[in-house]
Amino acid sequence: MKLGSLKSQSLDGELCVISRDLKTAVKATHLAPNLREAMEKWSQLEGSLQQIYTDLNNGKANGAFAVKESDFHSALPRTWLFADGSAFIYHIRLVRMARKAALPETLTTVPLMYQGECGQFLAPTQDIPQRDFSHGTDFEGEVGVVTDFVPMGVTPEQALKHIKLFVLINDVSLRGLIPEELAGGFGFFQSKPASALSPFAVTADELGAAYKEGRVHLPLNVTFNGEFFGKANAGAMHFHFGQLIAHAAKTRDLAAGTIIGSGTVSNEEQGAGSSCLAEKRMIETIETGAAKTPFMKAGDTVQMEMFGENGQSIFGRISQKVKSV
Amino acid sequence: MKLGSLKSQSLDGELCVISRDLKTAVKATHLAPNLREAMEKWSQLEGSLQQIYTDLNNGKANGAFAVKESDFHSALPRTWLFADGSAFIYHIRLVRMARKAALPETLTTVPLMYQGECGQFLAPTQDIPQRDFSHGTDFEGEVGVVTDFVPMGVTPEQALKHIKLFVLINDVSLRGLIPEELAGGFGFFQSKPASALSPFAVTADELGAAYKEGRVHLPLNVTFNGEFFGKANAGAMHFHFGQLIAHAAKTRDLAAGTIIGSGTVSNEEQGAGSSCLAEKRMIETIETGAAKTPFMKAGDTVQMEMFGENGQSIFGRISQKVKSV
Repeated sequence: MKLGSLKSQSLDGELCVISRDLKTAVKATHLAPNLREAMEKWSQLEGSLQQIYTDLNNGKANGAFAVKESDFHSALPRTWLFADGSAFIYHIRLVRMARKAALPETLTTVPLMYQGECGQFLAPTQDIPQRDFSHGTDFEGEVGVVTDFVPMGVTPEQALKHIKLFVLINDVSLRGLIPEELAGGFGFFQSKPASALSPFAVTADELGAAYKEGRVHLPLNVTFNGEFFGKANAGAMHFHFGQLIAHAAKTRDLAAGTIIGSGTVSNEEQGAGSSCLAEKRMIETIETGAAKTPFMKAGDTVQMEMFGENGQSIFGRISQKVKSV
Repeated sequence: MKLGSLKSQSLDGELCVISRDLKTAVKATHLAPNLREAMEKWSQLEGSLQQIYTDLNNGKANGAFAVKESDFHSALPRTWLFADGSAFIYHIRLVRMARKAALPETLTTVPLMYQGECGQFLAPTQDIPQRDFSHGTDFEGEVGVVTDFVPMGVTPEQALKHIKLFVLINDVSLRGLIPEELAGGFGFFQSKPASALSPFAVTADELGAAYKEGRVHLPLNVTFNGEFFGKANAGAMHFHFGQLIAHAAKTRDLAAGTIIGSGTVSNEEQGAGSSCLAEKRMIETIETGAAKTPFMKAGDTVQMEMFGENGQSIFGRISQKVKSV
């Protein structure tokens, strides 16, 4: 099943079911006004939503309309918690090398995680605002999961059962602000402004065999200014999503609608490319002694998309441009 | 004007206007179902809410009922962003001394701030769950402000105009988890579980002359296990709330309903006491060579309250007990 949030008067948008081929949609606001509220009663609504999805795919849904991705918000336009992990160890190694920061002693045993802005995600086709080029605007391509209510103290295995939906995330990062901010000791804040999600969120069955052991084993296709930038496989997570959820829930319940991010998808393999500029810059530095690729400037564009084995776009596309404000 | 959120089927509670003496309340759900949604259209609703408040104080509000504080959630039961500053320099010095951490070079020029859990605040009389005594459960007494929508890049002076309500906050902190978590470099996460707000939120006029220059110049009364613990004056903030809001909004818009916390209220003056155990423990260490006061154990209670010049409780009382879970 695929779900989306049609732009509307409400900041939450309107709950829609989207066809498997992303060509048609139908409102499901008679079940819940928006996806955020639907997450609170997921077990009650899932069957009805699934029925609408079946009807829609069979061309039998009343009120179906053609999808225009720019009419949709981020799949979940706003929610209660965005706990962003960093589960790709190769990414951590490269970005810490880039800012000459030490690796944590618990690198492979305790997930890194911070709490990100989730009160107003950018739409998937919305411009990324840039107040100052020196902020070092970067994209980070991630996979995320959306949970129902998760009780404090959940185990990683139990946590996997709380994953209800998957999304893509462009976790916008301001590299120029990170060193000073982290030196203060309180972690990211200004350096992690509003991110964007993919237009559509999907259930695990849409990923088929690619979803196993708490990881999505598919490449994340990233293009930068229209050219190939990365196709790193998201299955390379060191910690799986169950472990990330359990980490987040160690000392708190997680509200229904919580988004857990994978961290920047990253593979060490040659040819996989990268899912953020910081990595590419560090690889350039290692290979040539200096970073050549600048951070994003006004007019630069980034696209993120993931395709199923049949070549079908799973989540729709994140496609954003940097704009000076 | 004073507002509160009556517990109900909804996780947001129901919007209520509360009388100045905190004795009576009346629902205002015909204006907005809850305070979170009221914050989104504050300028439209403020006048109508004020009229209800006037009627309620005059004993003329239809449907008024007697207030029982335990029937109320935290003033804003859940919201989109809790950006918690640390504006009391004396507190920063003491807690960093306690964990042998360096002071940031920008201590007096750039506010420290992290993003805290706000998807489900504890109620003001709800137990603080403790999974493990070694987590070092502590309270932190703070003052907070609730804003309407704040555009990115706001100046500190403009930011003051976006303050619509004031609350008290018990920012629950797990001291035992902080050193390892901050050493990882990503800041607080597990060490900052769900906090509680005061039952009632109030507009600036309820603070009278005590609110000036972006600070609330009143003592925060803290009792621990029923005994005096602190009465530090909240007016001692180094950074005022306008500066904290501007810091939070440097690279993002702030959603209506954003809560900005002052950080632990702290005064250097003898006799002011403390608003958290970590400070008291550090003072004991300085004075006697060792901390005597343990962190909170099951059954320990903390109360926080602030009184106006006439002796009237302004925000109602936060009164919580630690419970093993």
